[in-house]
Amino acid sequence: MERGVRQKTGHKAGVFWFTGLSGAGKTTLSQAAAKALREHGLPCLVLDGDVCRKGLCRDLGFSETDRAENVRRVGEVAALSVGQGIICLCAFITPLESMRAELRRRLAQQYHEIHVHCGMQECQRRDVKHLYAAVSQGRIAQFTGIDSPYEVPAHPDLRVDTQAEDVERCLRRIMALIAERLGLPITP
Amino acid sequence: MERGVRQKTGHKAGVFWFTGLSGAGKTTLSQAAAKALREHGLPCLVLDGDVCRKGLCRDLGFSETDRAENVRRVGEVAALSVGQGIICLCAFITPLESMRAELRRRLAQQYHEIHVHCGMQECQRRDVKHLYAAVSQGRIAQFTGIDSPYEVPAHPDLRVDTQAEDVERCLRRIMALIAERLGLPITP
Repeated sequence: MERGVRQKTGHKAGVFWFTGLSGAGKTTLSQAAAKALREHGLPCLVLDGDVCRKGLCRDLGFSETDRAENVRRVGEVAALSVGQGIICLCAFITPLESMRAELRRRLAQQYHEIHVHCGMQECQRRDVKHLYAAVSQGRIAQFTGIDSPYEVPAHPDLRVDTQAEDVERCLRRIMALIAERLGLPITP
Repeated sequence: MERGVRQKTGHKAGVFWFTGLSGAGKTTLSQAAAKALREHGLPCLVLDGDVCRKGLCRDLGFSETDRAENVRRVGEVAALSVGQGIICLCAFITPLESMRAELRRRLAQQYHEIHVHCGMQECQRRDVKHLYAAVSQGRIAQFTGIDSPYEVPAHPDLRVDTQAEDVERCLRRIMALIAERLGLPITP
């Protein structure tokens, strides 16, 4: 990618919401996109599920109500950031269509949904955070895709498949979406 | 101020926390500082009490517990932002020393406290948001400085007096603090 695009106060901002199963690659891809945007001098903020669970939302559990409140708070932070010209990349499982519909309502045309798809078997095989192992040992309940539902987004703005495509290809397609939606002079 | 300082990924960031009575000028000064920083190409995020109360913290009231949770959540968002190179300007009454001590603990050397001082009489006279009128009519309770305490910060990093100094002078002093703490090439 070409370097040297200066930060402009007038650039468009947007919220790019990465949804998908645990282990699908949401954190990896949102971090990589943020790195690329920063190299272009564009201000961006990554909000990540695991990080927020330890801070902003550490009072919340994994019931449907608490998961919705988790997503609500992050949506509000995203709204604040984007309103001030900061591109916001959010990596959250966001399992239910009702949660994503609420984000779409709240953020309107600033909301762009990226479904990070990966088959459950492959997520379990990767198990980077050893969570699937903990689930199978009965140490974690209400785990998305196991004993808690994940509703596949029907019409995301983009769907990447981290099982069929490598990170570079997924990232290129994500950067193309971001560039197109924000009218950025970035050639992925 | 000179223009044209490019955003660098490597610039220092920090949290500048504006504390003071309602009407003292926290929002005005934090917005003005943000504008000046953005003109220098520096990414910043303003978190404002009134705005957060309508979004991120709209489930909270004004009891001491809820006020502390309000400040806690904003402190977490500030920690996230500053960790990603975004300068964070927070405008919250933050009435108790215990709340400010918690922020100092959480944000460590990235926390810089600005006490926006203004006498209660002058705040009541300004009453931009018609809140003091509502309090005197008994329509609002637990209002800071009236029937809820404001503990004056003993050792803020900076104290400005919006009764004795005009906005320009307060802003110059605030920008000097920010420039000094972050090592920014800004001449206020």
